[in-house]
Formats: sequence, C-alpha cells, structure tokens
Amino acid sequence: MTASKCSRLSGELSRRVLASVDTVLFDCDGVLWRGDEAVPGAPELVTALRSSGKRVFYLTNNSTKTRAMYADKLGRLGFGAEPGEVFGTAYCTARYLRDEARLQGKVYLIGGTALSRELEAAGIPHVGSGPERPGAVTGGMKDWAALEKDPDVRAVVVGFDEHFSYMKLTRALRYLQDPDCLFIATNTDSRLPLEGGRVIPGTGCMVRAVETAAHRKAQVIGKPNSFLYDCVVKECGLDPSRTVMVGDRLDTDIQMGSTCGIRTLLTLTGFSSLEEAKSHQENGSLSLVPDFYVDSVADLLPALSPADQ
Amino acid sequence: MTASKCSRLSGELSRRVLASVDTVLFDCDGVLWRGDEAVPGAPELVTALRSSGKRVFYLTNNSTKTRAMYADKLGRLGFGAEPGEVFGTAYCTARYLRDEARLQGKVYLIGGTALSRELEAAGIPHVGSGPERPGAVTGGMKDWAALEKDPDVRAVVVGFDEHFSYMKLTRALRYLQDPDCLFIATNTDSRLPLEGGRVIPGTGCMVRAVETAAHRKAQVIGKPNSFLYDCVVKECGLDPSRTVMVGDRLDTDIQMGSTCGIRTLLTLTGFSSLEEAKSHQENGSLSLVPDFYVDSVADLLPALSPADQ
Repeated sequence: MTASKCSRLSGELSRRVLASVDTVLFDCDGVLWRGDEAVPGAPELVTALRSSGKRVFYLTNNSTKTRAMYADKLGRLGFGAEPGEVFGTAYCTARYLRDEARLQGKVYLIGGTALSRELEAAGIPHVGSGPERPGAVTGGMKDWAALEKDPDVRAVVVGFDEHFSYMKLTRALRYLQDPDCLFIATNTDSRLPLEGGRVIPGTGCMVRAVETAAHRKAQVIGKPNSFLYDCVVKECGLDPSRTVMVGDRLDTDIQMGSTCGIRTLLTLTGFSSLEEAKSHQENGSLSLVPDFYVDSVADLLPALSPADQ
Repeated sequence: MTASKCSRLSGELSRRVLASVDTVLFDCDGVLWRGDEAVPGAPELVTALRSSGKRVFYLTNNSTKTRAMYADKLGRLGFGAEPGEVFGTAYCTARYLRDEARLQGKVYLIGGTALSRELEAAGIPHVGSGPERPGAVTGGMKDWAALEKDPDVRAVVVGFDEHFSYMKLTRALRYLQDPDCLFIATNTDSRLPLEGGRVIPGTGCMVRAVETAAHRKAQVIGKPNSFLYDCVVKECGLDPSRTVMVGDRLDTDIQMGSTCGIRTLLTLTGFSSLEEAKSHQENGSLSLVPDFYVDSVADLLPALSPADQ
C-alpha cells in the first residue's frame, strides 16, 4: 500500500482497499457489538462483504463462549456465521494444548463453562471448573498450603472465571511450583466492556494474580500473540497480502495484525481512541498504529454498494 | 559506622554494634518464627535485648492479626510483648485512614477479621468483609457491572482475604472508577511463607488483580514504605542513629531501613539469601544491601552474654 499509516478509510481509498482484500478478520466486542447490541450497520456490512465474495473470520480474546455459542450469538445479532469461522480463545486454547503442547495429563482450569466444553471437545481432561463448594475455605493457612493435588495435572489454564477465588489461586500456585507444569492464559485483557460504557474485570486481573503468586509469566493464547491468526491460516488458509484485521484495541488487535504482517483497520466504536493511535505514531511505536481507521465498520458499506460501482 | 556494607555480624563487631543500639525493630515471619515455630534461640535473644535495657518493636506486613493477636502469638512463642509494641499493617492501615487520610465515609474492605477489628477500633465503618453469601454469583455480566454500591464508601482497602473472589474484585472496581475513592493496600508481598518451606499466595496477588482492573496503583502501607516506621516514631519516639531494622527480606525490610536512614541487619532464616544481597551490592543497588547479616538472630546472643563482658 502506498497510503501512509493511520489514514481515514473512506471514499475512493475505501473502495481500493476493499478491492485488494479477500479475507477480513474481525474482533467482536467493541467492533461488531457492545454487550448484546450489534453496532448499527455492522450486520449489513458483514453480509455485503460475503456477497462480494470475501471470506470473514472472527478472532476474539473472550474465553466465555465456545465456537458454537459464538456462532449462535452472531446469528442472533444478524451476522450469520458457522462455528468453523470463529477463532475464540476457549477453542484455540484447547487446540494449543492438544496440537502444539501435545499435553499428556490433566488441566487445572480457572475458567468457565465454555473453556470446559472446548477442552472436552478436544479430549483434554480437566479439574477445577465451577464454584467452590460451600465451606471450601476451612482450617488455617497450613491446611491451604497442603491442599490435595491431582497427580495427573500437567498444565494450569487461566481464563475468565466468575468463580475465581483465593482457594483457586492457592491450588494454581501448588501446581505451578512444579516448573514442568505448563502455565497458559487465554488472554490478558484487563476489563470486559459492556453496554453503556460499563465494565467488569477481565481475565487479565486473574492472570496477574496467579503470575504474582507463581513468580512465573503465563504463555498467552490471545491477541496480541499470533496464535489465533495461526489457527486461521492452518485451518482455512489465507493470503496475508490480501487480508485485513479489523479491531478496536491497539494493544491487541492492531499489534497482532502488525506482528502477522497484514493490514490493520481500527474502528472507533470500542476501547481505543484515534488520539492514542496518533500518539503512538508520534512516539514511533508503529506496530500499535493501524494502517487505516473508521468511526464504525458501517462506514465501509458505501464502498461495497453495487449502485456505486 | 566504619564497617563496609554486608558484613557478617559476629565477635567484637557484634558487641560494638549492639552497644551502639537502643532500639531494635524486628520483622516477624522468617525472622522470629516460621509459621507457628519460633526460630531456635530467637525468644532468648529478645529477652536478652530487653534485659540489656534495649527497646524492641515488631514491624510486620502481615495483615491477618490485630496488635492484640500478635501480642498473644509473641507471648505463646516465648517472646513476651505488649500490643503497643506491635506495628502490623492491620493496625497501621486503620491508623492511616483515621489520622493521615482523615477518611470521612466507609471502607470497602477486601480483608479478614483482624483488619475488620482494627478498623472498628479506629471508629472506621466498613463493608465487604467475610465470605460471599452462597449464590452471590447470579445473573450475567450485565448484572455484575450494575452491582449495588454503598454510597458512603470513600476508600477501598486490600489486605489478605482468604475469601477473595471475582465478585469482590468487581465491587472494588465499581468503587475505584471514582477517582476520589482512596485505594489502599496493606502490603504487596507475593507469598506468605509457612513451616517447612511451604507457601501460600500473599496479599500482593490480590492487590495486583485489583490494580489491573482499576487501571490504578494502590497506596501501600507496609514495608518498603516507611509508614510502619513513622508510626513507631510518632507513638514511641526513637533515635535513628541508635536504631537497627532486622529482617529477612531485602525488598521490604532492608529497603525500608535504608529509606529511613537506620542501620539494617539481614537474617538468613527467611526469604532472601546472602547471594541476592551480594548481587545487589555488585549492581550498585545499595538500598537493598544490608549493613550486616547473620545466619540467625540467635547468633547475636553471645554479644549480650554477661559472662563475656
């Protein structure tokens, strides 16, 4: 591309860029929807991209849904998607453990139902999911330090877990004191954005707690690491020179796109602002600067409209 | 002192240093005891220091005991102490909120019974302590983001809490989104050492989780900050040139002593090693290098023995 970095994508430039693209990778939260509401015009854009013969994939750090649950939500909000088009961290974490780490043994899981199901689908046994039994915090510190360990656990996985607790943290530390025990985090997002600007703590908070206890850093599956992208490449193939990553976060979506050598598009309906992008540009942190930006993905619709062609 | 840094304290040097000291500040865990076992010879040393007319104070980052509970444990293990000689973070946090921050309003407390009692003793109302009610995690993310707030809360305090949970983290975030809400941590120790080399996650893990969610740094009451020392000075007075800080951690005890301009003694019965101290000395990180070290505080006993005088 001859365009300089961080250009607004509109008019003729928009038409040229979309014509040069076969594959569009979308982040979901803050890009296609916020909470349970679709970004206006986003479903129409995805439909138009498909009608123009482009392939669409969904790359999300959120570990609270399986591929099937994401396809359901995408369908419900008007996007329409197959489970095989969704690359979320619940699915990709299970895939990593099975195909890359070739885990022999169980996972101690800090995480919810979706992670649990994707691990099961990949044939990986696990323990730890769900709420503590009432009265789990009994005895004193000496008893907690001696909590029984499952001798088959070979990996600790930390994803979003609304039942996260001190006792789960203590168990994770017990396993991670063995340097051969793998330590995997689905993602390190500090907050989860919801409707109306509300937020709740994200998986990153729980990952930092476990890292602090274990004196170890987790290996991260989600963006900005390239593993979600690598999964798309392996399962579906793509031409990097004809692919664009669309996201709302500079430090995850845009950074991952830069690392993978594909073009990047920031949409301003979510986490990061144009000011932050410009500030990275001034500081020379170019991997955090998108090639293009739009106020909303809906702004791309005119460039795909047959009436204008 | 003419002695170079990081000298072994023994023989004639030990006698000279102790003769130049009126006040001895002891860390507890890893120095005087490990878990529920006194370090052999430590009770005799404290008794001998007192018999020689020296004052002894206890400065501990541990927030799980009130002053009275510490005095009980000290007595039980053979040290003998008055509550007024104990400066723990439960007591000092309450003192900070009352006397320094002059808090008008309630505390949202992530912490245990001791913190709760010290806040009560200081007349500071608080909410949040204790286990979640069974079934507290109900509804979905939208409901958690809208958890009811107590309108009188003006500070979030994070100490050791064996009932720490995702819902407590979520409530803390809700309060800390108000930039006027104070954010206090008792300490940031990553682990709590127990008998036999066992460990459990320390308060630092919970502090990091809340900091990550809130996008804010907590103000820390415990060592290496000087507030515990400042409390001793205010309540009891001392001559810094005739005071020594005795601890097992370079990054808390020794750093605090350096910051406060008093002499420092590392004991090797706990967290930090002599190699770490020497390595800081080589790197020029002198505030982390003790003036003296001993294998155990019991090694100081001969220098106080009347038979040798």
